Amino acid sequence: MTASGNTRPRARDVGLQLGTLPTGAHNAITDVAGVRVGHTTLISGSGKLVPGAGPIRTGVTVILPHAGNLFREKVPAAVHSINGFGKCMGQEQVEELGQLEGPIALTGTMNVGRVTDALISYGIRENPDIGITTSTINPVVGECSDSYLNDMHGRHVHEAHVLAAIDGAAGGDVAEGSVGAGTGMSAFGFKGGIGTASRATPSAAGGWTVGVLVLANFGRPDQLVIDGVPVGRLLHAERAAPPERGSIMFVVATDAPLLDRGLLRIARRCAHGLARTGSTSGHGSGDYVIVFSSAASVRMPHEPVDLTWRPELAHDTSLTMDPLFQATVEATEEAIINALFRATTVVGRDDHVREAIPLEQVLPLLRRYGRISD
Amino acid sequence: MTASGNTRPRARDVGLQLGTLPTGAHNAITDVAGVRVGHTTLISGSGKLVPGAGPIRTGVTVILPHAGNLFREKVPAAVHSINGFGKCMGQEQVEELGQLEGPIALTGTMNVGRVTDALISYGIRENPDIGITTSTINPVVGECSDSYLNDMHGRHVHEAHVLAAIDGAAGGDVAEGSVGAGTGMSAFGFKGGIGTASRATPSAAGGWTVGVLVLANFGRPDQLVIDGVPVGRLLHAERAAPPERGSIMFVVATDAPLLDRGLLRIARRCAHGLARTGSTSGHGSGDYVIVFSSAASVRMPHEPVDLTWRPELAHDTSLTMDPLFQATVEATEEAIINALFRATTVVGRDDHVREAIPLEQVLPLLRRYGRISD
Amino acid sequence: MTASGNTRPRARDVGLQLGTLPTGAHNAITDVAGVRVGHTTLISGSGKLVPGAGPIRTGVTVILPHAGNLFREKVPAAVHSINGFGKCMGQEQVEELGQLEGPIALTGTMNVGRVTDALISYGIRENPDIGITTSTINPVVGECSDSYLNDMHGRHVHEAHVLAAIDGAAGGDVAEGSVGAGTGMSAFGFKGGIGTASRATPSAAGGWTVGVLVLANFGRPDQLVIDGVPVGRLLHAERAAPPERGSIMFVVATDAPLLDRGLLRIARRCAHGLARTGSTSGHGSGDYVIVFSSAASVRMPHEPVDLTWRPELAHDTSLTMDPLFQATVEATEEAIINALFRATTVVGRDDHVREAIPLEQVLPLLRRYGRISD
Amino acid sequence: MTASGNTRPRARDVGLQLGTLPTGAHNAITDVAGVRVGHTTLISGSGKLVPGAGPIRTGVTVILPHAGNLFREKVPAAVHSINGFGKCMGQEQVEELGQLEGPIALTGTMNVGRVTDALISYGIRENPDIGITTSTINPVVGECSDSYLNDMHGRHVHEAHVLAAIDGAAGGDVAEGSVGAGTGMSAFGFKGGIGTASRATPSAAGGWTVGVLVLANFGRPDQLVIDGVPVGRLLHAERAAPPERGSIMFVVATDAPLLDRGLLRIARRCAHGLARTGSTSGHGSGDYVIVFSSAASVRMPHEPVDLTWRPELAHDTSLTMDPLFQATVEATEEAIINALFRATTVVGRDDHVREAIPLEQVLPLLRRYGRISD
Repeated sequence: MTASGNTRPRARDVGLQLGTLPTGAHNAITDVAGVRVGHTTLISGSGKLVPGAGPIRTGVTVILPHAGNLFREKVPAAVHSINGFGKCMGQEQVEELGQLEGPIALTGTMNVGRVTDALISYGIRENPDIGITTSTINPVVGECSDSYLNDMHGRHVHEAHVLAAIDGAAGGDVAEGSVGAGTGMSAFGFKGGIGTASRATPSAAGGWTVGVLVLANFGRPDQLVIDGVPVGRLLHAERAAPPERGSIMFVVATDAPLLDRGLLRIARRCAHGLARTGSTSGHGSGDYVIVFSSAASVRMPHEPVDLTWRPELAHDTSLTMDPLFQATVEATEEAIINALFRATTVVGRDDHVREAIPLEQVLPLLRRYGRISD
Repeated sequence: MTASGNTRPRARDVGLQLGTLPTGAHNAITDVAGVRVGHTTLISGSGKLVPGAGPIRTGVTVILPHAGNLFREKVPAAVHSINGFGKCMGQEQVEELGQLEGPIALTGTMNVGRVTDALISYGIRENPDIGITTSTINPVVGECSDSYLNDMHGRHVHEAHVLAAIDGAAGGDVAEGSVGAGTGMSAFGFKGGIGTASRATPSAAGGWTVGVLVLANFGRPDQLVIDGVPVGRLLHAERAAPPERGSIMFVVATDAPLLDRGLLRIARRCAHGLARTGSTSGHGSGDYVIVFSSAASVRMPHEPVDLTWRPELAHDTSLTMDPLFQATVEATEEAIINALFRATTVVGRDDHVREAIPLEQVLPLLRRYGRISD
Repeated sequence: MTASGNTRPRARDVGLQLGTLPTGAHNAITDVAGVRVGHTTLISGSGKLVPGAGPIRTGVTVILPHAGNLFREKVPAAVHSINGFGKCMGQEQVEELGQLEGPIALTGTMNVGRVTDALISYGIRENPDIGITTSTINPVVGECSDSYLNDMHGRHVHEAHVLAAIDGAAGGDVAEGSVGAGTGMSAFGFKGGIGTASRATPSAAGGWTVGVLVLANFGRPDQLVIDGVPVGRLLHAERAAPPERGSIMFVVATDAPLLDRGLLRIARRCAHGLARTGSTSGHGSGDYVIVFSSAASVRMPHEPVDLTWRPELAHDTSLTMDPLFQATVEATEEAIINALFRATTVVGRDDHVREAIPLEQVLPLLRRYGRISD
Repeated sequence: MTASGNTRPRARDVGLQLGTLPTGAHNAITDVAGVRVGHTTLISGSGKLVPGAGPIRTGVTVILPHAGNLFREKVPAAVHSINGFGKCMGQEQVEELGQLEGPIALTGTMNVGRVTDALISYGIRENPDIGITTSTINPVVGECSDSYLNDMHGRHVHEAHVLAAIDGAAGGDVAEGSVGAGTGMSAFGFKGGIGTASRATPSAAGGWTVGVLVLANFGRPDQLVIDGVPVGRLLHAERAAPPERGSIMFVVATDAPLLDRGLLRIARRCAHGLARTGSTSGHGSGDYVIVFSSAASVRMPHEPVDLTWRPELAHDTSLTMDPLFQATVEATEEAIINALFRATTVVGRDDHVREAIPLEQVLPLLRRYGRISD
């Protein structure tokens, strides 16, 4: 949990218990079997913004649903927009076909075209028949604006950066905070970025895992709530309040054997987890959810030889769905708090500074309100 | 605030400050100019359920957007489903046309056909040309299940009850808790029902009012959160946990001059307010929002004589929308807490008891966690 | 095909070949195994309208997906709105859960409350535990306006009429035209009402059947197109053109083993079939589709004992879906033409006359344009 | 109408009268005041496909809603998916905000990333404050697959090509057929591509214009219907039937003063126009509509100084909307037929040949079935 020498704690490390369900082994989206995450972080230059040149504080994060050929073995998926002020790529086809056929990439807003193009390159590399003897591929990209710290005009994420993130993607612990797509992001007036968490449902309810990864770049300083404590308002007296900006992207993975409709219902619960951190999803926010199932029984071949198949599917009942909903809400909340806690201070273009949340001020508040013990 | 001799406090009466925006004069949906609310409460019989006969613990609540002829002066409106396990009437036409042309009625689930029919009767009474020389009318009905306390088979809400609620609808203070449609409802294992609250946005942001009325019939006991304090878990040690059941209906009114798209964006924020009370919107929940604008400039005539009109509309910016979103979230949260606080214990069919939330246990918890002072 | 002594021909009887796929045995929605249709037709009184009293020209039509207990064995379903100026009941829950748990009823607009209530009565009759020890039931009702011929204020469809339609529902030939919900309907300025048709897909593509039943109450006289021939314009010289009114309800059944998403895709193709008859889906039209699968492998138990199930599902490919789409389009077109051809002249309130389409004028046009031979 | 030396006729030139409303001056999307269209056509190389190198048969087409700064003066817009097997960019934000803030670009599928990136470059060029002191820009891109004729791997549409199309965009006559994005497209087994048409509504209904531009790349040979005549089936005896592939993009412009909801209702009518040409919207088709209003009164400033505005809006009635719907259906149908008629034969990669539709065979059929005279 100390990727890149980052020694800042996660929420659990300081004693926070968000919700009641148990976490997976890594408390990360990678607790869902087969899911891998990769980052490419781009930091160079400093000082005054030269549009198109730098300074550069951006990157890309990729999430791969399983270790096989994603185009040949598609996974059920759904998308959901909480507030749609954003520039996502690939959502329409996911909605129509209920499936995902490649990695999900997250990045800074203006990189979206280049990252889309890079995912097409990746698709071709793995499947040279694409666009020649078989159909085309649907690249899926989400974004948030790193405008405050980064030279967005430069669109510095290139194909090699995306391919490196994919090729380096791994399971296990996930680097959080100011890494990958999170490099230039801000949340609640502090440094934001990548965060992740997971929950397991009771074995009587399927024993499935839900993992959430967020790219957190949203929230007005006074709004921040941590485990029910209005930390933002309590800190706010001492800080100026920049207006709300930004967005949040949610990627949700589960091994529950669900198709698109069940996944869409899960996607809608990210709003509940988001709300627990104090957000009201501002006008200018692009709050999008992409959710998929990595369960082996629901993977769909690219060109099936049979007319029908027999997936094993979770029944749609309170018994199965309520724990999955709760898991999603809790993991979403914790992923956001992890993004905040783990993010390190970044100085960016025009010497803009986005400070890490001052845990030395936050932890006493959490203690005072009975959320963590001494 | 002591309708029906109910002396239980609202959230503000015990010192809770949910959110930061100021409330309207009555802290109720009726703070939006012109909006009126009426209830008919049906309580009779006791003891063993005789399906179709009783005991009766049900009712109907109506919300009227303005005091004029609603069919002749339609108001912009939108609907939104957070989780759609419910039996709403009239939502499709609101979605297509972006307008509401009659009262909104809330009731117990199985009454939905009869209340629909009664709204048609009301429409005909006020507009005898409906279905003869002009078009038909779109009745809008929402429902939650009062199964635990009420004889649902009897469908005891009749036309006269609905008309009485409409004819008795008034502005000012709104009776809350175990009244009208709320008579037989439960929330978080306690007695639920009707609750309302309002917020005003800053004058620099328009100075508009948002009012919310809920029919609260949802939530697992351990989930309840009040102003960030996990009251449900703290009380839970002493209580058995019935499984989650039920639903919540939200009616949102505003005098902000918005058309359907802006209203839909507001509707989506009810999920954020709902989440603040601990809900994860269970599988079996029908969580629906109906939102309308009562602003005079956006009312639409039934049969316009001109081809075009010139409504005054709020611009769609962070300046105007963010405060409206915040107002919606805060009023939603407080309306739910008001429903819980104001609801009185009801004994229903088969001597089922749904107790009012024990404020004598809750208030000390809120004090202990710094939410209210002594 | 001569139900009720009706000797008017169907489209096939005069030699029309709409599309290229073969029909089922009855060329009706009942060609989908297990599907049953029932009508109650209400005709009484004549002359001047006495609002609330008569004359009565209305009715109800019910479609049952299978012969078992529909609440205990739910079927996958989807709904779609082409233009939503209508008052449907029950669509939200179908959308959320992707399933249907009772009969579909079609009726005149203002009867929608009473028919909803009657479906609840039916649900209780078959499942006395509803609303007492198990959840409530979702009634699904569609409607069109029979205002021109019928006393709508009277809402003359009562519970007994709905139960009679259900109890009398049968497979095999389906009565069409001025029967059931179609009694008071109009289309393209002529008498409209109930129509049905079916198509079978090639055995290599699954060999599945798609059946469509419409309640046709839409269309401006000059718009009517039959098999590509602009019959409306050709007839129009001799007729005054009443403005467009009304709506069309589509019920689509298939034995293809699809869940809600696949069914929704089928539902969207009703617009294509509708368009082939010349409609542009007017502003005031409620054009709704309800589609379900009766395949045994996809039925869902009310309260499953297991966590998962293994339905046999059609793969989502061009091979399987394209023929289903084509079947839907063709059966929709033919069902509408059947409704027109089979409808008999009705004289209604205020001596309003809606004449059957004059086949003696239409058939020569179809011959002249090479659509049927002599 | 003979752009690029193309002497093939449009539908009107051979005497076809599709629908009954009058066309605009150019029978093109540019009949909507202010709308401009630009193409860049890329043709080079021949013979065997060298993936990534050529042969090249692709391009880009752009549609600009007005001649001003599109980011500073946004226009109301809506998007709609008939069948979502496609890779559109920018639809989510159009849906959330109901507005368009830049050109619409159409291209070959795999170019979508690069064209997105080019639209960002264009946005920055015109508005250097984007992503530095103001918000980011939403690029809107639609695509169809030119796989049969073009080297898709090469993604040959570069930034300069997009900027050239934008900078060269003009009103008046629009080049159709195998130009711009249409260079490598196929429809109904013949060469497809760009087509356009327009209709004017009666002055009593507003006198507004609707213009449609399509990128036609869809349809199975036997499906083709021209003005009701099953041309595909009639020609089919002599031709082998390649399976259906491809997609169709619709861009709809109007000067009717509508906001997003009214525009969405118009967008839904493209399915009706599409259906008139015989399509059933195949599984693998990406059938997307983008519609905007260029009316001056509904343009929205990027950063409004006031809280409210007073647009002049069309009332939402049968009088105003029905002619707009009819205009959309008719212009859609004719735009598709124009794309087919105007497209010239193209020989592409691997010497694949896509022939222009043989008008010398089609016209006699249209005569035989009474659609055109000698």
